[in-house]
Amino acid sequence: MSPMRPPFRFEVLATQGRARAGVLHTPHGPIPTPVFAPVGTQAVVKALTPAQLLELDVPMVLANTYHLYLRPGDELIAELGGLHRFMAWPRPILTDSGGFQVFSLAKLRDIDDDGVTFRSHLDGSLHRFTPEKSIRIQENLGADIIMAFDECPPPYDRAYNEAALARTHRWAERSLKAHTRADQALFGIVQGGVFPDLRERSARFLTELDFQGYAIGGLSVGETKDEMYAMIDIVTDILPTDKPRYLMGVGTPEDLVEGILRGVDIFDCVLPTRLARHHAAMLLHGGRLNLRNARFARDPDPIDATCGCYTCRTFSRAYLRHLIVAKEMTAATLLSIHNIFTLQRLVREMRAAILEGRLEDWVAAWREQRARTSSPTSK
Amino acid sequence: MSPMRPPFRFEVLATQGRARAGVLHTPHGPIPTPVFAPVGTQAVVKALTPAQLLELDVPMVLANTYHLYLRPGDELIAELGGLHRFMAWPRPILTDSGGFQVFSLAKLRDIDDDGVTFRSHLDGSLHRFTPEKSIRIQENLGADIIMAFDECPPPYDRAYNEAALARTHRWAERSLKAHTRADQALFGIVQGGVFPDLRERSARFLTELDFQGYAIGGLSVGETKDEMYAMIDIVTDILPTDKPRYLMGVGTPEDLVEGILRGVDIFDCVLPTRLARHHAAMLLHGGRLNLRNARFARDPDPIDATCGCYTCRTFSRAYLRHLIVAKEMTAATLLSIHNIFTLQRLVREMRAAILEGRLEDWVAAWREQRARTSSPTSK
Repeated sequence: MSPMRPPFRFEVLATQGRARAGVLHTPHGPIPTPVFAPVGTQAVVKALTPAQLLELDVPMVLANTYHLYLRPGDELIAELGGLHRFMAWPRPILTDSGGFQVFSLAKLRDIDDDGVTFRSHLDGSLHRFTPEKSIRIQENLGADIIMAFDECPPPYDRAYNEAALARTHRWAERSLKAHTRADQALFGIVQGGVFPDLRERSARFLTELDFQGYAIGGLSVGETKDEMYAMIDIVTDILPTDKPRYLMGVGTPEDLVEGILRGVDIFDCVLPTRLARHHAAMLLHGGRLNLRNARFARDPDPIDATCGCYTCRTFSRAYLRHLIVAKEMTAATLLSIHNIFTLQRLVREMRAAILEGRLEDWVAAWREQRARTSSPTSK
Repeated sequence: MSPMRPPFRFEVLATQGRARAGVLHTPHGPIPTPVFAPVGTQAVVKALTPAQLLELDVPMVLANTYHLYLRPGDELIAELGGLHRFMAWPRPILTDSGGFQVFSLAKLRDIDDDGVTFRSHLDGSLHRFTPEKSIRIQENLGADIIMAFDECPPPYDRAYNEAALARTHRWAERSLKAHTRADQALFGIVQGGVFPDLRERSARFLTELDFQGYAIGGLSVGETKDEMYAMIDIVTDILPTDKPRYLMGVGTPEDLVEGILRGVDIFDCVLPTRLARHHAAMLLHGGRLNLRNARFARDPDPIDATCGCYTCRTFSRAYLRHLIVAKEMTAATLLSIHNIFTLQRLVREMRAAILEGRLEDWVAAWREQRARTSSPTSK
């Protein structure tokens, strides 16, 4: 196991406990870590333009290999100059391996040791992913960070998790062999459900392989918070300290705080944009405002008076509620801006606290404020 | 009939034939004319933010009195500081009188000489508009330019148009009497269907009243282009030259060119944003591209290589088609930006040509290009 290879470089600038503040250098520029990446499933972060994401100073976005392979097709995107140019996103992109969607979204799948056969959720057409195929698609897309192909079993099935983990490890080796582009960093994915010994085995096995970074997969899929945090503890104790760690699919303020405290560097989640389309504004200390609620009808205040986002600087809750009730799609845009800004703000505040050696105080203050503002849907 | 009263002032900077280039000064800043105003029916230009409209340098937007009266209510908007603050639009706003929507959108209307009783298209509730009520609502909203309450009969029914015109004229006098806010300019609306003598009568009658500007209503509602242009000719020959003229609900490139040539200063239309939601990109010389079409699937070019809008500077037709096929709402945003930019570009080019005394050449070149690119849906 060597450190990251050029053009990639991961600098850990400061640590506090297991928490780290760093910079991940990529061919499309530096990513300050910890970082939260909004999700652009279909090569667009829903309801936003790249200009709006740049105004939010989003460092990286995630795009989904499964979706883009099916539509418009990875070869078409390659022909048009790759994903950065296609979606006009000048900063780093991360693509997943397609594994999670094949196991959660596609139909009639058939798993063997070589790969997975599945039917498209769009038109029922038959397709097959192998580690080699996933890497080829991700090379066509051209993201800066790409993922090894993995299997995502339900978290509590021990026998299934053992078998799946063995396959995931063989697929990790095959993904590494298949990968040819030096301008992409390939990450391995630790699996193992809620089983401490499997998670430990997976972290140890993958650490021995020459990945440029490590993801923790198969969490936030139905297990308890305590189980999730315990698995992160086990894994981050084993993973090398000089490579980035990525907790996949996690995006509540609480989980970002707990993940960063456990040494996670990268997060992604559809939550801020999905909640926005369902009229919910995320709050920095956890909790949400459902802006469709009639109590906001005459409310002149912004979502959050301490928030510096365009939406909070510009619009009242009453106006946002009006847009929602009137079914105006601009509501999704404005709430997406606020929700992404809120998660950006959270990771930035924590990063600054780590760099300045005051993370404990920050976390104590955050938890106190969280306790004061209390239940998830109130305010 | 006096010129516009402070704080309003209309400067005609240059004329060519009947075409005029000017500036309309309002409490929310100057409007260069000719001007095209995008429509924000429900206090938002669909799929866009005010920041995006400012980046497009849109001088003015229109909002609909009927819609805002029903939802969220003009009194709520007044309580929250008026429409400019509510929708966060710092530049001039124009509101219509609600007449057109009452006659086209509402149900079970009952017209008498005093006003109109109608049922809301939202919930069937019963409401009544009179000239006094329309003005009170528009004063609550607080737009810079507001409209007298008028009746909009079908264009070819002579008897109906005669009766309606008599009512519209009495309502114009009552609207003037009811109006109290000096920071709003009240415009009268010329009606008369496709009947030259009625249009002439209406223009003469309203010119004698002390309106700050004049709208031409009841056109682009089913009559032929020749009939529309003939009505504009008749009316603009009579209207005073020192007050702005507003052709309501018109927004194709061809109609803007023909309207400006006949001395119209202000236009509004839902067309650019509505077409955007239906996947159509407007072209400067008329015609449209339906970007859902499969022939754009691998097309690396922008919608229009000569267009300087964010969408054309940034995205390929292939990407826009992908967003449309994938049902991503960002497609409506990006096409709205392009379509509004295209109409802005058209009126700005014509304004510059008038100021520089070369309108005839500009129009000849535009018509030649239009003939070359030909049919409405081709490219």
